[in-house]
Amino acid sequence: MALTDWTNEPRVPYDDLHALIARMFEALGLRPFDATTAADSLLIADLRGIETHGVQRMNFYVLGFRQGLIKPVADLSVDRERASTIAFSGNHGLGLVMATRAMERVIAKASETGICLGTIRESSHYGIAARYALMATERNMCGMCMTNTSPIVVPFGAKRHALGTNPIAFTAPTNGDPFCLDMATSTVALGKVEVARRLGIPIPAGWSLDAEGQDVTDPFAHAGLTPLGGDYLRGGHKGYGLGMMVEIFTSQLASTSWSGGIVREHADGDAASCGHMFMAIDIDAFRDLQDFKDALTDMCLSLKAMEPVNPDAPVLVPGDPEMAATRYNLEHGVPIRQPVYEELQQLASELGIAWL
Amino acid sequence: MALTDWTNEPRVPYDDLHALIARMFEALGLRPFDATTAADSLLIADLRGIETHGVQRMNFYVLGFRQGLIKPVADLSVDRERASTIAFSGNHGLGLVMATRAMERVIAKASETGICLGTIRESSHYGIAARYALMATERNMCGMCMTNTSPIVVPFGAKRHALGTNPIAFTAPTNGDPFCLDMATSTVALGKVEVARRLGIPIPAGWSLDAEGQDVTDPFAHAGLTPLGGDYLRGGHKGYGLGMMVEIFTSQLASTSWSGGIVREHADGDAASCGHMFMAIDIDAFRDLQDFKDALTDMCLSLKAMEPVNPDAPVLVPGDPEMAATRYNLEHGVPIRQPVYEELQQLASELGIAWL
Repeated sequence: MALTDWTNEPRVPYDDLHALIARMFEALGLRPFDATTAADSLLIADLRGIETHGVQRMNFYVLGFRQGLIKPVADLSVDRERASTIAFSGNHGLGLVMATRAMERVIAKASETGICLGTIRESSHYGIAARYALMATERNMCGMCMTNTSPIVVPFGAKRHALGTNPIAFTAPTNGDPFCLDMATSTVALGKVEVARRLGIPIPAGWSLDAEGQDVTDPFAHAGLTPLGGDYLRGGHKGYGLGMMVEIFTSQLASTSWSGGIVREHADGDAASCGHMFMAIDIDAFRDLQDFKDALTDMCLSLKAMEPVNPDAPVLVPGDPEMAATRYNLEHGVPIRQPVYEELQQLASELGIAWL
Repeated sequence: MALTDWTNEPRVPYDDLHALIARMFEALGLRPFDATTAADSLLIADLRGIETHGVQRMNFYVLGFRQGLIKPVADLSVDRERASTIAFSGNHGLGLVMATRAMERVIAKASETGICLGTIRESSHYGIAARYALMATERNMCGMCMTNTSPIVVPFGAKRHALGTNPIAFTAPTNGDPFCLDMATSTVALGKVEVARRLGIPIPAGWSLDAEGQDVTDPFAHAGLTPLGGDYLRGGHKGYGLGMMVEIFTSQLASTSWSGGIVREHADGDAASCGHMFMAIDIDAFRDLQDFKDALTDMCLSLKAMEPVNPDAPVLVPGDPEMAATRYNLEHGVPIRQPVYEELQQLASELGIAWL
């Protein structure tokens, strides 16, 4: 689909784009250090080629600040804490910042006791889950991160949607690029249906259900996404179960509403008052770090060396495409679609800050 | 498929069957307390209707003991331990026992620090993952359990199998039955292909690949299972990523071989020297237990109250069918297929122990 074609789109050097986004967040009321963190969290999505969660979301965050649903200045507060757990409130701060601060604490605590599990309630949209799980691999730990989202996924066997796309990210360090799984628990992301609508093309069977819970290929008949797997024969009940697992960590354990209860924050359908889960695991608590990295590197190389069905499509390991995109975008500049580029110019003008 | 038809099969009262299986394990060399534990771990599968992992496996375990691959008397030893982590060796003991002992320690440690993560290396087949995750809900905690298995799942895009079916179990307490997800990270279990072979019927597209990595509906052409989702359009790359996540916990973190490296223990293809992962989470470390249970119960009831596509197939929550089976089987007796019943009679005779 057209989403992967960047041939004619502008590219901006990462450092310049980062400085611009940080200036914007500061102009929107964030403290300088928080503005830098927010730019870090947002831009890692564009670097990794996940454009749906990158700078194209700036207007969405701006709306949140202007409606008073996201507070530009907020600090985490601790509801409960034990040696290896911490339950935060995000006090309606910006998820991009709150989640970073939470994961920093979770990593520090894990280095003491071997593992730490943290939750945040009263947070807001935090970009990509991989961002926080990857903070763990930077410290040579394994990381995990989940979030609830506004409801769009249809529980297995139901007619209507009730669960969020509820992503799971899991990371582990290797001798090369980190292993990085970051997946919605729906079959596909909503963005793929939106692209089909823009292009006026049908969607494959198994992605979407209409308002009666029937499988549809007309993207305009879409009323909800299927859980990972789709129908019963393909394991849709398993994707539904995984989505509920994410709810339990990020809603019931985190003391926030479940996706079915999240009030839509904005017209484009994202979540207010959402909950997140963070985990860090100190590998040295189980075995020598280098032995772990050698063993995982060996498995990844063995898998990548397997004979592929399609000679042009080698077997990959989760995180490979995103690391390739990151290297390319750091070298050639971060691509921004022309309409988003113009939106950012407009926003810079409104905020009275210097353009690139 | 025929697997769900128990009309003409013998049923045995749970207590009688439990006593028989415990006698068998004791006759095979287990210490009395361990034999009781092994019977507990094995029979929960039959109770929950997961016959593939229940008493029909007795001959498989017997073969393991006789070949010297599983030691009837073994104790866990601790490789490394921190406040919230513990890395065990199972010293080639019976997985059904080793995993129970490990989860007991993990639960005890979680009650101190809020969470505990444990691993076992050098264990053997342990039955169903749900058994150990459910030990946590008995103590009002959340539980998680994973295991690697012998290779049968084809990595996304590859021609041959390399990963195990690598199940994930996750449990949480409610005011009623526990939430209990227990799922292989393949689209279906191998047992479903075996049933189709027995019945001489085709399998649905998306379950199995032939030796060239092509989708097949002829169960006799099956050479490997697809990861959850199946092909790319249905998210098969996500199921592959989940399978690798399970490997990382149960192979690299647990210091054992990954599924691609596990030597097949027996002709019927199960794993020796496999690794497991266990986690327990003390809910009170995050919020009041009763508030958590109320919130989760509310979500489950909301989901079950949703209008179903098929009026005869209400929306369920993971664990519902297995709890219904458990109640039925406790009341009416545990069903055993006639050939398995006769195998058990034969085994009792060989071991020189009293029959039911």
